[in-house]
Amino acid sequence: MSRKLAAEFLGTALLLVAVVGSGIMAERLADGNLAVALLANALATGAALVVLITIFGPLSGAHFNPCVSLYAALRGEMPWRSAALYMPVQFAAAVCGVWLTHAMFALPILETSTHLRDGPAQWLAEAVATFGLLLTIAGAARFKPEGIAVLVGLYITGAYWFTASTSFANPAVTVARMLTDSFSGIAPHSAPGFIAAQLIATLAALRLLPWLFGTKT
Amino acid sequence: MSRKLAAEFLGTALLLVAVVGSGIMAERLADGNLAVALLANALATGAALVVLITIFGPLSGAHFNPCVSLYAALRGEMPWRSAALYMPVQFAAAVCGVWLTHAMFALPILETSTHLRDGPAQWLAEAVATFGLLLTIAGAARFKPEGIAVLVGLYITGAYWFTASTSFANPAVTVARMLTDSFSGIAPHSAPGFIAAQLIATLAALRLLPWLFGTKT
Amino acid sequence: MSRKLAAEFLGTALLLVAVVGSGIMAERLADGNLAVALLANALATGAALVVLITIFGPLSGAHFNPCVSLYAALRGEMPWRSAALYMPVQFAAAVCGVWLTHAMFALPILETSTHLRDGPAQWLAEAVATFGLLLTIAGAARFKPEGIAVLVGLYITGAYWFTASTSFANPAVTVARMLTDSFSGIAPHSAPGFIAAQLIATLAALRLLPWLFGTKT
Amino acid sequence: MSRKLAAEFLGTALLLVAVVGSGIMAERLADGNLAVALLANALATGAALVVLITIFGPLSGAHFNPCVSLYAALRGEMPWRSAALYMPVQFAAAVCGVWLTHAMFALPILETSTHLRDGPAQWLAEAVATFGLLLTIAGAARFKPEGIAVLVGLYITGAYWFTASTSFANPAVTVARMLTDSFSGIAPHSAPGFIAAQLIATLAALRLLPWLFGTKT
Repeated sequence: MSRKLAAEFLGTALLLVAVVGSGIMAERLADGNLAVALLANALATGAALVVLITIFGPLSGAHFNPCVSLYAALRGEMPWRSAALYMPVQFAAAVCGVWLTHAMFALPILETSTHLRDGPAQWLAEAVATFGLLLTIAGAARFKPEGIAVLVGLYITGAYWFTASTSFANPAVTVARMLTDSFSGIAPHSAPGFIAAQLIATLAALRLLPWLFGTKT
Repeated sequence: MSRKLAAEFLGTALLLVAVVGSGIMAERLADGNLAVALLANALATGAALVVLITIFGPLSGAHFNPCVSLYAALRGEMPWRSAALYMPVQFAAAVCGVWLTHAMFALPILETSTHLRDGPAQWLAEAVATFGLLLTIAGAARFKPEGIAVLVGLYITGAYWFTASTSFANPAVTVARMLTDSFSGIAPHSAPGFIAAQLIATLAALRLLPWLFGTKT
Repeated sequence: MSRKLAAEFLGTALLLVAVVGSGIMAERLADGNLAVALLANALATGAALVVLITIFGPLSGAHFNPCVSLYAALRGEMPWRSAALYMPVQFAAAVCGVWLTHAMFALPILETSTHLRDGPAQWLAEAVATFGLLLTIAGAARFKPEGIAVLVGLYITGAYWFTASTSFANPAVTVARMLTDSFSGIAPHSAPGFIAAQLIATLAALRLLPWLFGTKT
Repeated sequence: MSRKLAAEFLGTALLLVAVVGSGIMAERLADGNLAVALLANALATGAALVVLITIFGPLSGAHFNPCVSLYAALRGEMPWRSAALYMPVQFAAAVCGVWLTHAMFALPILETSTHLRDGPAQWLAEAVATFGLLLTIAGAARFKPEGIAVLVGLYITGAYWFTASTSFANPAVTVARMLTDSFSGIAPHSAPGFIAAQLIATLAALRLLPWLFGTKT
C-alpha cells in the first residue's frame, strides 16, 4: 500500500505542477492573449496526464482524483478502506504540488485565489466536465484499457476548451487551485459549487455508465 | 438497439459540445485573433473525436454523421432500418448538444446564426471535406481499423484548416450549427448548399472508394 | 498498377491541399502573426500526412515524393519501371492539388509565387530537411514499420520549425508550390536550388543510412 | 560500438537542431509574442524527440543526455566504459547541432548566450525537470517500454511549460545552449547552477525510482 500511496501522491502533485505551472508560465508569456495561454495550459496538462497515468496506472490505478476513487469504491471495484486512504493523499498531494510550483516560479508559497467562477452555468459546466471524464474512463476501461492514459489526456485537453469552466472535474484539484492566485486559480468562495457539481455528476455517471457499457453487476 | 441509439445520441451531442463550446471559448479569449481561435477549435474537436469514437465505436459504430450512416447503408454494411433510426437521433442529438453548450456558457438557449458561408468555392470545399472524411474512414476500416478514431480526429483537425469551409462534412452538425450565433455557426440560408455538397461527395465516395480499397462487392 | 498510381495521385494531391490550403487559411486569419500561421500550417500538414500515409501506404507505399521513390529505386527496393511511373504522377498530382486548393479558396487557379527563398543557408536547410526525412523513413522501416505514418507526420511538423527553409524536402511539392502566391509558395527562381539540395541529400542518405541501420545489401 | 556512437551523435545533434532551430524560427516569426514562440518550440522539440528516440533507441538506447547515461551506469544497466564514451560524444554532438543550426539560419556560427537564468527558483525547476524526465524514462521502461519515445516527447513538451526553467534537464544540452544567443540560449554564467541541479536530481532519482517501480536490485 505504501507504494500505491506514493504513486498517488507523486502523480497528483505532478499533475498540479503541470496545471498550475503551465498556467503561470502561459500568463507570464502570453502578454494578455488568454487564448494562447489556455492553449498552452491545455496541451501541457494533457501531455502530463498521458505520462503520469501510463507510469503510475500499474502501481495505483492513477486516480489522482477523489471522484474517480469514489466512483470505483461505489462500483465495488476498490475496497472502501483503500479509497479512504487514497482521498486524503490526493488532497494533500495536490496542495503540495501547488506549493512546489510556487517555489519554482519564485512566487509566495502561500496564496489564495481571487478568481471568481460562480453561477449555475459554471456549475453545469463542471458537472458536464466530470461526467465526461468518468465516461471517458469507463469507456476506455471497457473497450481500450491500454489506451486509457491517452484518452484521458485528450479528453482533458479538449474539455479545457469546450466546457465553460475549463474542466476542473476533480475536487482535490479544485481545493488546491484555491491556493494559487494565478491563471488557473479559483476563489475559495467558488469552490464549494464546483465540488458539489462534481459529486452530483459522479452519482449520475454511476447510474448511467454501467448500463451504457454493459458492465452492470 | 436502445444502447446503440444512446451511444449515437451521447456521442453526437458531445461532439457538438466540443465543436461549439470550444468555438465560443476561443472567440471569447482570442481577442480578435481568429487563427488562434481556429487552432483551439480544431484541436479540441479532434481530441474529442478520438475519445468519442474510441468509446462509442464498439457500441454503435460511432457514426455521429448521417453521411456516414447513409454510406454504410448504401454499401450494405448496415441495415436500412438501423440507418433510418440512427439519422434522426443524430440530428436531434446535435441540436441538444448545441443547447447544452449554450447553457454552459450562459448564452440564450435558442439562437440562429448570422454567419454566411456561401458560394461555389465553399460548396466545393465541403465536398472535398466530406469526401476526405469518407476516404479516411474507408481507408482506416480497410487497413487500420484499430486506428480509426485517431485517424478521424487527425483528419478533422487538419481539415478545419485546409478546406476553405472549415470542414463541416456532416449534415447533422450543419443543421445544429445553424442554431448558434457564435464562432462555429452557419446561417440557415447557407446550410442547404453545404448539405447538398456533402451528399454529392458521399455519392462520389461510394463510386470511387470500393474500387480504390479493393472492397467492391 | 493503376490502383497504385491512383493512390499516389490522390495522396500527393491531398498532401498539397493540406500544405497550401492550411497556409492560405492561416495567412487569412492570423492577421500578420506568422508564428501562429506556421503553427497551424505545421499541425495541419502533419495530421494530413499521418492519415494519408496510413491509408495509402498499403496500396502504393505512400511515397508522394520523388526523392523517396528515387531512394527506393537506387536501393533496389522498387523497380525502376515503377519509379519512372510514380514520379510524373507525383508532380502532376501536386500541381492538381494546388489548383484544387485555389478553387476552394476562391483564388485564381493559375498563380506564380513571388516568395524568394534563396542563398546557401536555405539550401543547407533543405538538405538537412530532406536527409532527416529519409532518416526518419529508413529508421522507421527498420525498427517500427507500423509507426511510419506517425513518425513522418511528427518529423515534418517539427521540421517546419527547426529547418530555416520550413522543410519542403520534396521536389514535387517544391514545383507545385511555385504555382501559388500564398503563404507556402516559393518563387520559381528559388526552386532549382531547393531541388538540387534535396537530391544531394538523397544521395548522402543513400551512403550513410544503410550502414547506420545495418540494412546494407 | 561505432554505430552506437554514431547514433548518439546524430540523435543528440538533431535534438539540438530541433531545440535551437525551432527557437530561432519562433522568435523571428512571433513578433514578440513569447507564448506562441514557446508553444512552437515545445511542440517541435517533442515531435523531434519521439522520432529520434524511436529510430535510434534500438541502436544506442537513444540517451542523448549525460544524466541518462550516468543514471544507467550507476544502476549497472550499462558498462562504465560505454558511458565514458557516450558522454563526450553527447557534448560534442550537441555543440555541433547548434553550429549546424546557426549555419541553416545564416547566423554567426560562434555565439555566446547573454540570457541569464539564475537563482534558487530556477535551480529547483531544473531539479524537478530532470527528476521528472528520469521518472518518465524509468516508469516507461518498467511498464510501457514500447511507448518510451512518445512518453519522453510528451513529458518534455509539457515540462517546457510547467517548469519555470523551460526544462533543460540535460547537461549536454545546457552546455550547447550556452553557444547560441537566441531564444533557447543560456548565459555561461548560469550554466553551472543548472548542471549541478540536474546532477543532484539524478542522484535523488537513483534513490527513489528503483523502490517506486520495484526494480531495486
